[in-house]
Amino acid sequence: RIALPIFASDALSSVAYAPDEIFIVLSYAGIAAYTFSWKIGIAVAAVMLVVVASYRQNVRAYQSGGGAYEVATVNLGQSAGLVAASALLVDYTLTVAVSISSAAQYAATAIEPLQGHQATAAVLATLFLMIMNLRGVRESGTVFAIPTYLFMAAILGTAALGFVRYALGDLPQATTAELRLVPSAEFEHGLTSLAGAMLLLRAFASGSAALTGVEAISNGVPAFRKPKGANAATTLLMLGAIAVTMGLSVIVLANLMGVRMAENPATQLVRPDGTSVGPSYHQQPVISQLAAGVFDHVPVGFYIVSAVTGLILMLAANTAFNGFPVLGSILGRDGFLPRQLHTRGDRLAFSNGIVALAGFAIILILAFDAEVTRLIQLYIVGVFTSFTLGQAGMVRHWNRLLSDEPDPATRRRMMRSRAINAVGFVVTAVVLAVVLVTKFVHGAWITVVAMAVLYAMMRGIRRHYDTVAAELAVDPSEELTLPSKVHAIVLVSKMHKPTLRALAFARAARPDVLEAITVDVDPPATRELLEEWDRRRIPVPLRVLASPYREITRPVVDYVRHIRRSSPRDVVTVYIPEYVLGRWWEQLLHNQSALRLKGRLLFTPGVMVTSVPYQLRSSEAANRREERHSSIVGDVRRGASYGPATGTTRPRRPGERR
Amino acid sequence: RIALPIFASDALSSVAYAPDEIFIVLSYAGIAAYTFSWKIGIAVAAVMLVVVASYRQNVRAYQSGGGAYEVATVNLGQSAGLVAASALLVDYTLTVAVSISSAAQYAATAIEPLQGHQATAAVLATLFLMIMNLRGVRESGTVFAIPTYLFMAAILGTAALGFVRYALGDLPQATTAELRLVPSAEFEHGLTSLAGAMLLLRAFASGSAALTGVEAISNGVPAFRKPKGANAATTLLMLGAIAVTMGLSVIVLANLMGVRMAENPATQLVRPDGTSVGPSYHQQPVISQLAAGVFDHVPVGFYIVSAVTGLILMLAANTAFNGFPVLGSILGRDGFLPRQLHTRGDRLAFSNGIVALAGFAIILILAFDAEVTRLIQLYIVGVFTSFTLGQAGMVRHWNRLLSDEPDPATRRRMMRSRAINAVGFVVTAVVLAVVLVTKFVHGAWITVVAMAVLYAMMRGIRRHYDTVAAELAVDPSEELTLPSKVHAIVLVSKMHKPTLRALAFARAARPDVLEAITVDVDPPATRELLEEWDRRRIPVPLRVLASPYREITRPVVDYVRHIRRSSPRDVVTVYIPEYVLGRWWEQLLHNQSALRLKGRLLFTPGVMVTSVPYQLRSSEAANRREERHSSIVGDVRRGASYGPATGTTRPRRPGERR
Ligand SMILES: [K+]
Ligand SMILES: [K+]
Ligand SMILES: [K+]
Ligand SMILES: [K+]
Ligand SMILES: [K+]
Ligand SMILES: [K+]
Repeated sequence: RIALPIFASDALSSVAYAPDEIFIVLSYAGIAAYTFSWKIGIAVAAVMLVVVASYRQNVRAYQSGGGAYEVATVNLGQSAGLVAASALLVDYTLTVAVSISSAAQYAATAIEPLQGHQATAAVLATLFLMIMNLRGVRESGTVFAIPTYLFMAAILGTAALGFVRYALGDLPQATTAELRLVPSAEFEHGLTSLAGAMLLLRAFASGSAALTGVEAISNGVPAFRKPKGANAATTLLMLGAIAVTMGLSVIVLANLMGVRMAENPATQLVRPDGTSVGPSYHQQPVISQLAAGVFDHVPVGFYIVSAVTGLILMLAANTAFNGFPVLGSILGRDGFLPRQLHTRGDRLAFSNGIVALAGFAIILILAFDAEVTRLIQLYIVGVFTSFTLGQAGMVRHWNRLLSDEPDPATRRRMMRSRAINAVGFVVTAVVLAVVLVTKFVHGAWITVVAMAVLYAMMRGIRRHYDTVAAELAVDPSEELTLPSKVHAIVLVSKMHKPTLRALAFARAARPDVLEAITVDVDPPATRELLEEWDRRRIPVPLRVLASPYREITRPVVDYVRHIRRSSPRDVVTVYIPEYVLGRWWEQLLHNQSALRLKGRLLFTPGVMVTSVPYQLRSSEAANRREERHSSIVGDVRRGASYGPATGTTRPRRPGERR
Repeated sequence: RIALPIFASDALSSVAYAPDEIFIVLSYAGIAAYTFSWKIGIAVAAVMLVVVASYRQNVRAYQSGGGAYEVATVNLGQSAGLVAASALLVDYTLTVAVSISSAAQYAATAIEPLQGHQATAAVLATLFLMIMNLRGVRESGTVFAIPTYLFMAAILGTAALGFVRYALGDLPQATTAELRLVPSAEFEHGLTSLAGAMLLLRAFASGSAALTGVEAISNGVPAFRKPKGANAATTLLMLGAIAVTMGLSVIVLANLMGVRMAENPATQLVRPDGTSVGPSYHQQPVISQLAAGVFDHVPVGFYIVSAVTGLILMLAANTAFNGFPVLGSILGRDGFLPRQLHTRGDRLAFSNGIVALAGFAIILILAFDAEVTRLIQLYIVGVFTSFTLGQAGMVRHWNRLLSDEPDPATRRRMMRSRAINAVGFVVTAVVLAVVLVTKFVHGAWITVVAMAVLYAMMRGIRRHYDTVAAELAVDPSEELTLPSKVHAIVLVSKMHKPTLRALAFARAARPDVLEAITVDVDPPATRELLEEWDRRRIPVPLRVLASPYREITRPVVDYVRHIRRSSPRDVVTVYIPEYVLGRWWEQLLHNQSALRLKGRLLFTPGVMVTSVPYQLRSSEAANRREERHSSIVGDVRRGASYGPATGTTRPRRPGERR
């Protein structure tokens, strides 16, 4: 079963930062409050088991990979689905920002010169993942399997060795054990009354970061082996058990070894001699501190544990680079994001998603200086919003199925499932409320605002698509009348080969009226053009349009409108000679006025714009490059033969009006 | 004479930083070396007078505003002209970077909270100038006149008051006078031998920054009143005299007041108690120190002098925003930069230049942290390269004129001018050599590299234009044969109004062959389309192109090629139905595959691409916006009447082949 490791990295890697956050919040109340850490750990573990049990229902019932978006849309309606989608988009972005920032923290712990440059390192790591994903490097399951198993082995091994050494009375203290934790003024007298309860709730909310990544499985069901639902459910259960074991082990061992963490170490941590550790102090993550102590006789152990943890965090970030474009594609299909994101087989669509994800993650990393503790506040809201909506959707799902299920055995099974999802809904809703209340001012509001903006944007895009579709729809009885005449205009700026070709093509099309026009922006050049026109005896009249302000677009547009006004039933076709170059910078060097003119003409009713290309030599090279680029596809197709067209066909005579 | 102030800001503002640079370089040899400061000042003043005398010849002979580029191109050939152009482009960029960085330094001296944020302030100031220039705010002469006269009055007034107080024995010492200057190890025993001579040359090279801005006049001759040449020459002379007076006054007064400057104040400056001033020390520019001392009883004097100096520096930067796009336009006209930069009356062309200048300046400001002393190293090379080439060109100019001038009086005058320019050439070439030798490793190499890159780029662009022009030129005898038949294809993706309109327009054009094609990327949708096609009895056959890889572009391109191969004398015209939306973001939401297909088809010989637009409601609003935007121009034109076309006209019958 290779499926576990592929999706496990996101969920398991949370052990790298969630325990730290519990200690950091508790540190406000001084060292005495640390006794609550394992109780909070157990509470988080309980929520984890409830969420896992609930999600086992989800993955069995919905296997398309839409996750909470799909469940919420089907069962609770479009609005709830869009809220879930917003939550998931935010979730993916923060998975990247948090995981990479945490990885940078581990890297700086092991490699001292990196300290103080975590944000730079994190941005570079994000760009690295972006480029790897843009190049379309597909990881095999093994690439995920090895670090995931190594990470489990590293954490559980460190913990086991620690517990053995504790039993033998040989467990060393952590290096931070000698530091004194200064409680904030509010908690000078310990955890009392309301403020104390709030602090414990905040610590619990922070610890809930351990659950981030569980939702990733439900978005990844399509990648499981058959039976997909059952395999995903089994994976979830194993994952939950392992994550709980790892998380609790870390918390217990940290207590045994006297680990000290603080939100503001510079002022909160005091050395035995009474001096603060100061701003240059680098706070090591809990796991690093444990490894440094447990492997005090084999220092390489510390480096291995740090490296493996950094690696699993990078893999967790990478899963978001796979998931984000898939969700974008689903939302594009449903018209809530640009349709192009859905175009299948089009790498470009995925590339846009990958670049967007990296861009947003980098903004977050820079804005929060790659500080995990501050980013976490934004992360949990999104994850628990999707949990809550997913569970609420499942309750409605069972209600729906129960309403027309006669078989008592099946009904019993469904009612059991509904009960599990109902518990899941209540628990995750309560946690979401706790998170919102305790974290709102610490950064959760940013996520709420971001979700609101995404929600409004997706609604707006869908409204736009609906409007356009309604405008474009054809009445079943609709009959378009044919224009009575074609009035052709060839735009001339100079006498060169593209102009001659455009004139030849326009004449070949035999329009009812044909004339050439030139805009007089440079009178001597215009005079020369007129002379050459006569010298060459070009059999098409040339009209000169005045342009006192030396513009090109407006005189042409005005003239076209003038024709339309004089004969409204005609169609005007404007031939624009263009020369085609091979390289983008070559194209940039040439006047864009033809492009601008085309753009403006398209806004004028009753006009067609015909580009007559003239291929310069450099374009042939570009054409060959393009051919080679897609040669595999081309080879299959090259020998294609074309049969007769279907539809209403009949023999025809040249020039016949259809 | 309003012309002086308009061009004076660039040249005069150099007094705000050039004296500082002399002291800063000398500081390496300790306070004893300061006795050389006024000697170096006199040497710089001598060069200034030579350059002014020489440039008086230039402005009388060349009045188009091309400056050194024009003089070098006409007299020394294209390569020399391009070197001068590269030098001037670099010069404009550094005028902005240096002037604004210096202004930020003055601002931080007067407004303490700005200290340490000079780079941010400088970037914001650059963006401010960029926006003002993009909005096309045209300054009147008065806007320039007032600050320029105020600046002269401020500097000369401060100096005069200082000298009077010195004569009365009442001149206070500068605040830095009490600091001790620690010479670098190399100069512990004073200025000796080669190293000492090199240091004096470096100080002289730095002081030559005082000449930056003189070249601006020769680029601005067209803006002078007639007789332009004579007025510009007079302005130059006055400017030179004023600048020399101001610069020398500042140096002398700084010596009298015991001003101390250092390149690295944190380590080089020591307080009377023996402690270094440390990294938080903000080094005040010389002029600020003088003003603070001279106006010790009226502190507002210090603020006025600082504000006026900052203002003239901003004006100096602004002149580059006027000059850079003009030079870009001249280079565009000559085919060395994109031709679009020359399009007259087109604000867009100038906007590109303004944005490019601001962008390059901001890069420099950030790369050098707005430190004037480091930016100066890059500045002087460009300026003296253009001086040297301008003077060399003038010597050739007089040689040319002398070769066929018979009148002895005129010959004498020309020989006198030639002698002046020859001296100018020798002096500026020597200074350029000194600058290159003493500054190369300190940053001048960056300018040399930048100039080489610009030179290569401009040559490459010109070569490209020449190649294209040769390829497009028509043989006088050339006769294009008309294609024998028109094969029309209407591209269909869905049955909607744009499709029906494209079919109607294509039918109205009565091609020899007409068919519709659709690419089968989604079989059920294709089946539905075929059924609707038959149900509506559309009188055009519909051909389905297979697309196993769900691409759109390639099947269409392959089919078009197939037609061309079967009947090479035909022309294929592809009708593409498009719907037109009003807002850019709306257009982004729709599939770009039509755009990509058009792009690829243009590379295929013998094909025309016809866009048939269908205007959606939102496009009408956009069209109205566009109308209003250019309403002034439109009003003039709206009543235009169109006479008959000129050229070879004759009456014609419908459908007649021409
Ligand atoms: K987790
Ligand atoms: K996670
Ligand atoms: K996640
Ligand atoms: K100057
Ligand atoms: K200057
Ligand atoms: K300048």
